[in-house]
Amino acid sequence: MTIALTMGDPSGIGPEITVAAWQALRGSGPAFVVLADPSLVGAYAPMHIVAGADLGRFAETIPVLPIPLAAAAVPGAPDAANAPAIIASIEQAVRLALSGAATAIVTNPISKAVLKSAGFPHPGHTEFLAALTGTTGHEAMMLVAPELRVVPVTIHVSLRQALDMLTTERIIEAARTAQAALRRDFAIEQPRLAIAGLNPHAGELGHMGDEEQRIIAPAIAALRAEGIDATGPWPPDTMFTAGARGKYDVAICHYHDQALIPLKTLDMWNGVNVTLGLPIVRTSPDHGTAFDIAGTGRAHPASLIAALRLAAEIARNRNR
Amino acid sequence: MTIALTMGDPSGIGPEITVAAWQALRGSGPAFVVLADPSLVGAYAPMHIVAGADLGRFAETIPVLPIPLAAAAVPGAPDAANAPAIIASIEQAVRLALSGAATAIVTNPISKAVLKSAGFPHPGHTEFLAALTGTTGHEAMMLVAPELRVVPVTIHVSLRQALDMLTTERIIEAARTAQAALRRDFAIEQPRLAIAGLNPHAGELGHMGDEEQRIIAPAIAALRAEGIDATGPWPPDTMFTAGARGKYDVAICHYHDQALIPLKTLDMWNGVNVTLGLPIVRTSPDHGTAFDIAGTGRAHPASLIAALRLAAEIARNRNR
Repeated sequence: MTIALTMGDPSGIGPEITVAAWQALRGSGPAFVVLADPSLVGAYAPMHIVAGADLGRFAETIPVLPIPLAAAAVPGAPDAANAPAIIASIEQAVRLALSGAATAIVTNPISKAVLKSAGFPHPGHTEFLAALTGTTGHEAMMLVAPELRVVPVTIHVSLRQALDMLTTERIIEAARTAQAALRRDFAIEQPRLAIAGLNPHAGELGHMGDEEQRIIAPAIAALRAEGIDATGPWPPDTMFTAGARGKYDVAICHYHDQALIPLKTLDMWNGVNVTLGLPIVRTSPDHGTAFDIAGTGRAHPASLIAALRLAAEIARNRNR
Repeated sequence: MTIALTMGDPSGIGPEITVAAWQALRGSGPAFVVLADPSLVGAYAPMHIVAGADLGRFAETIPVLPIPLAAAAVPGAPDAANAPAIIASIEQAVRLALSGAATAIVTNPISKAVLKSAGFPHPGHTEFLAALTGTTGHEAMMLVAPELRVVPVTIHVSLRQALDMLTTERIIEAARTAQAALRRDFAIEQPRLAIAGLNPHAGELGHMGDEEQRIIAPAIAALRAEGIDATGPWPPDTMFTAGARGKYDVAICHYHDQALIPLKTLDMWNGVNVTLGLPIVRTSPDHGTAFDIAGTGRAHPASLIAALRLAAEIARNRNR
């Protein structure tokens, strides 16, 4: 079992959390190979160069598959000249996973602004990975924290656009993808899906919005007709309390912050992003490049460590 | 110091949490008089009849100012015939507070559906209290939990309507009301206001919605020009984490669930609703009538107890 860990933006916190994750996991695993410019890790820890998804002496030195940078990486000062290397690291990780040489990929944070300025056309990792694996349109994002799993039906769009995009079909698609992933990747045989309401108090029978009756309830009925244990629509403000969380395996949410506010409020540092609907296993830390603290030693590696552990767990579950 | 505690819906959990709150507070205070049909509390605890906001022997028996019910109260089975008594209890509490006989009012939960069927024209307590005190249009709701205070700019409307209603003026008005309340009622001399963004990541400079630039940032600039310590717009998903919460005294939120999801996720049972902008002090527990568990003994009195304590604290701060 080898995980391919991408470089991410070399001017963000990726290099330092990568080294910290290796220090935390070198004894216990899971083991990983870093696809990055050797200078990024070599300055902070012992490393050895590998040619593919080889681990070598993982417990003693960090395996690095070289992806050379065009410009020196300055912490906190991203450089669009390095966009091709950032992208190449992701492409190479996907190749290793598709070929079976790597059992999973974990991605360090990238900056959409940096990649966009270099002509990168994708909104983010998730869509790029879907394109690389030929599964565009079926990808979904699950956020996993120790106490909560959430899948947002709409993601990186304005709140108004999220309302316009919400359809019965989109909810059904996200719920089916979540159901399949919970069975295959999380080894939950009968997953329980809690479908959120959209409006305050889930609309109170149409008094405050009718999306619950018009869009969400039909999706729940269709899912139940397929044998999926979907319930709701639940009042959004009470479905994430400690008592409520124990009653479901995933919350299907309608917009970014309905999913992300409870998850990050509960646990800022241990959240993991899992991409569902891909042929490969992919997780990532649930935070950005954090250019503002890059190089200061203040970055927390907890989310990356959790992402590496979860990637290994999913790969094991898929190979049962 | 006497608090007037209203009856709420007599078929909900109001009577049982009232008795439980008296048991918790009879020794330490704050003391309160219950404005209700004597049968509601007399069945569970010793009580004595009073004619106004008299406390009598609060440590030994519950003071009850009688408001007779038209029909016997059956737990879990609300009866519109009791709507006049429910309303009279609120009106009487307001009279006691306006006259100075009571230092604050605390309201037990009501059912909007029950009151509506009896012709009650107000969306809820808050608007009714504003009408009774001649302050309609200036009322605002603050939710207070041990770790977080929030003020939603829009409240009981659909999410789509909340987007349509959001204006620079409404944000400014809510923030001014919150600022004044934090100084007068919470004794915070220089309140720090965190103004939420609306869209994912606060819009990422207009890439996902422009309300931050068009509506929210101008409100923050206007507030700062008035000398109010307002900051933002903050990304909604990271502003409620433990680290972020310590940096402000109140979060100004744009829609019901942006405020209520983090508050209830953090603390389901100790939240208190405080009405701002009224000439009287009013708090209430942050939950509904809970008809489904009324009479079963499963209701938690914690939120009502917290509401009584906070009402007393606010009254003390106002009288400094």
